[in-house]
Amino acid sequence: MHWARWGDPTEASALSAATLGLVGAAFGPAEPCGTTQLADVRVPVPRVQEPLLSELRDLLGDEHVLTDHAARVRHTRGKSTTDLLKMRAGDGCDAPDAVVEPADHDQVSAVLEWCSRQRVALVPFGGGTSVVDGLTARRDDYAGVLALDLCRLNSLVHVDVVSGTATLEAGLLGPEAEALLSRHGLTLGHFPQSFEYASIGGFAATRSSGQASAGYGRFDDLVVAVKVATPIGTLALGSAPASAAGPDLRQLVIGSEGAFGVITSVTVRVRKQPEVKVYEAWGFSTFRAGAEVLRQLAQSGTTPTVLRLSDEAETAVDLSQPDLVRGGPAGGCVLMTGYEGGGREVRATRDRSTALLTELGGAPLGEAPGSAWAAGRFQAPYLRDSLLDAGVLVETLETATSWSNLMTLYDAVRSALTAALGDQSPAILLCHVSHVYPTGASLYFTVATKQRENPVQQWATVKAQACDAIAAAGATITHHHGVGRVHRPWLEAEIGPVGVEILRAVKQRLDPAGVLNPGVLVP
Amino acid sequence: MHWARWGDPTEASALSAATLGLVGAAFGPAEPCGTTQLADVRVPVPRVQEPLLSELRDLLGDEHVLTDHAARVRHTRGKSTTDLLKMRAGDGCDAPDAVVEPADHDQVSAVLEWCSRQRVALVPFGGGTSVVDGLTARRDDYAGVLALDLCRLNSLVHVDVVSGTATLEAGLLGPEAEALLSRHGLTLGHFPQSFEYASIGGFAATRSSGQASAGYGRFDDLVVAVKVATPIGTLALGSAPASAAGPDLRQLVIGSEGAFGVITSVTVRVRKQPEVKVYEAWGFSTFRAGAEVLRQLAQSGTTPTVLRLSDEAETAVDLSQPDLVRGGPAGGCVLMTGYEGGGREVRATRDRSTALLTELGGAPLGEAPGSAWAAGRFQAPYLRDSLLDAGVLVETLETATSWSNLMTLYDAVRSALTAALGDQSPAILLCHVSHVYPTGASLYFTVATKQRENPVQQWATVKAQACDAIAAAGATITHHHGVGRVHRPWLEAEIGPVGVEILRAVKQRLDPAGVLNPGVLVP
Repeated sequence: MHWARWGDPTEASALSAATLGLVGAAFGPAEPCGTTQLADVRVPVPRVQEPLLSELRDLLGDEHVLTDHAARVRHTRGKSTTDLLKMRAGDGCDAPDAVVEPADHDQVSAVLEWCSRQRVALVPFGGGTSVVDGLTARRDDYAGVLALDLCRLNSLVHVDVVSGTATLEAGLLGPEAEALLSRHGLTLGHFPQSFEYASIGGFAATRSSGQASAGYGRFDDLVVAVKVATPIGTLALGSAPASAAGPDLRQLVIGSEGAFGVITSVTVRVRKQPEVKVYEAWGFSTFRAGAEVLRQLAQSGTTPTVLRLSDEAETAVDLSQPDLVRGGPAGGCVLMTGYEGGGREVRATRDRSTALLTELGGAPLGEAPGSAWAAGRFQAPYLRDSLLDAGVLVETLETATSWSNLMTLYDAVRSALTAALGDQSPAILLCHVSHVYPTGASLYFTVATKQRENPVQQWATVKAQACDAIAAAGATITHHHGVGRVHRPWLEAEIGPVGVEILRAVKQRLDPAGVLNPGVLVP
Repeated sequence: MHWARWGDPTEASALSAATLGLVGAAFGPAEPCGTTQLADVRVPVPRVQEPLLSELRDLLGDEHVLTDHAARVRHTRGKSTTDLLKMRAGDGCDAPDAVVEPADHDQVSAVLEWCSRQRVALVPFGGGTSVVDGLTARRDDYAGVLALDLCRLNSLVHVDVVSGTATLEAGLLGPEAEALLSRHGLTLGHFPQSFEYASIGGFAATRSSGQASAGYGRFDDLVVAVKVATPIGTLALGSAPASAAGPDLRQLVIGSEGAFGVITSVTVRVRKQPEVKVYEAWGFSTFRAGAEVLRQLAQSGTTPTVLRLSDEAETAVDLSQPDLVRGGPAGGCVLMTGYEGGGREVRATRDRSTALLTELGGAPLGEAPGSAWAAGRFQAPYLRDSLLDAGVLVETLETATSWSNLMTLYDAVRSALTAALGDQSPAILLCHVSHVYPTGASLYFTVATKQRENPVQQWATVKAQACDAIAAAGATITHHHGVGRVHRPWLEAEIGPVGVEILRAVKQRLDPAGVLNPGVLVP
């Protein structure tokens, strides 16, 4: 992963003429923005020095305690637009003092014990794809900050073909996990947009949700068991597919964002690799009409594996695929549907979904737009880099609510964004429904505008007003990005002061020295 | 609910000739056991006296603070066989000092605040159907013990037809909730064996699972939002169908068994009332073969609404339906399947399930045994009373594990029970799979033997050895009964010392005076 851009920049393609045209029409001529060189990124003087570094080397081996400039820069932040803007500007103020690479659960435990004793803050680092500032520790008076990179915990520990489960170490990235599972003819089926660089541990720690969640379930649905290293010992949970043995503590670990412990392995539900994958598109007259169809599908008990409904604006102007000819109704909306599974199963589900979609007024647009979406599904973050290069500020935010509140929420967030962007027009404001449930759905907004003098502050202002609107509408502050530091100011509005006390009590009990990812999640 | 028997004894029918024959053949002639009269039950001298009672009356009104003998006796225990044996023997040592009946959430909060201040222990009481000793508080040096009966929290607060959710107050019993929902054409679909007397709050507090969980989901799956009164304030959770806003604290409330707070209302997913209900039976050669079929059904993505597979012994001797002619294969096993839903949906699911069941060697036994099962599904607890009357000791226990471990667990628990019952033979030992999931299933055992001199101690010994075997097999100590006081000694084996620390930390933060259901759940 590039230190200041998404993924492998050689995989990125230049902005197409169509996109450049779009951007030019909206924001005027591109204003290329430069990027600092890695060597010029300013990082703080490390607090963790000898003899502490020697102690760490004794624990992990010399080659697994990295203090070089490049390693520190690469572990400085996640991949939000704000993170990228700061890195591009050479701001490495959040760089860890050192990066440690434990080999296994026991070494993770040893590092935690050491950090607690030395009062050194520790940031668990999986794929480094956080977009909510989940990877920068509060420094305060800590004796230093380490990034704990889980890259060496990269085994498929066990496959239980009969039960349909697999135990994966936390540091495995999405494609690595899928490659290991594919040798057994299996798949996890978890494909968030960050899939190519995000880790198994990160999926669990941030309560991730994939693009195929309608079919495979959210990551929290897939977790059967977890193993966590905490400063006070190991927590291993999950002895049955379901249990009444008190509260489900797995659901306290999932979403804990490194604040309670370090997830070292996860046992997940897996399935046979799909024999068939089909993606197609449907046109609807309005976003509201399309959302109503999603609701009926979600409540029917028969849903496609993938459902993604773009609003009118996103249908007209998809920044990630401006060349795509959808052929949808003018002024209308496009719904992507995807079916994955065994041949007979896909046929049955597709037949029933098609009947319902047709009955509810959908216009079939064929497989071409669906296949194009599927082919480009992991490309959007690359496009963001190119837009940032061209002086555009582009970022996303997401939420979820009940079906009855969905359009109210949509209007409220759009109004807040429009008001916040008011003096920054012209701006592009897009939205889609990416995840559906029987009782509600998520909304995912994309905002693009021209970068101003201080684009980090520019976005912070817009984002805060959107978050206020989400909280006021009674929706969740995040459906799948996590809390990190970005959403933390709004968490109390969602879980209340008593909920905050629960998080604090657990944090204090498991991490009495307060060294785990300080400043993240817990208000 | 009768104070020493299940439900309304006028609903119970006498033991059939067939059952009496069975019991006689197994254990010799019936030895009728007498029951103490309610008036003769020995209850302790109440610690909560004036002026404390006056303070409670000021909070709740005179008629909602009950101190009469009958009210105290009726709130003494739950409905395990041990509970019934103690009540029959006139042992009311666990009776609360008084029973309070708050009208609403705010009055519950007021009682909690008062109990914390006075250091009076408080036992939340819904339907009183606990079978794990979840309703008897540790007395220690508390200033007394109150039962907090939620019977007045019995409203359907809100129905959201669009989102398919309903907010139900915690004191509603199963049939009351269904009656209120049926006015809107809706159903919760949650039908545990205790359905007729258990409460909505109890379903949530104990992580209940219904007989139709394969179709409707466990109660924890159905919960969208919860409202809880705790000694430090109100906890209201659930702002979206799914969220990444940190740990899912709802899953800490579900299964909290009154130890963290009092659940006052629950928002649940509801569905249209089924147009069609069909139950039928299938024969399989062995329990193992039947379990393999359940696994394939559960992993196929198409399951009936109800699945219940009896082992060879239960198929031959179902104590609850000894007259039932199953017509299954001699020495084989019977699987009950049930389909509920819209006509088209039931037809589709039934067709696909039937194809799979046939392909996997099932012999169709028709609808008669299925309908008989459905008609008698809530009768088993009445039968238990009749068997206890006849000198038989009968009790159940349950667990769950992964598919790959299911038969190992089955053998281990049977061996442990057989060894424990060794010198008490003859005994009847039955088992069925009642709940299935893609990754595993539950096992539900019924044990019947002749009552000895001290049947309470007799069962405690047998139960402990079964629990040891379950823990040793790595399965959950309870799939749907809860922890209470009965399973508490085995909880640490399941969630580990760090898991126990989490429960203690949350308990201490939410209930600093330690007045909520002391002795229950938290080791």
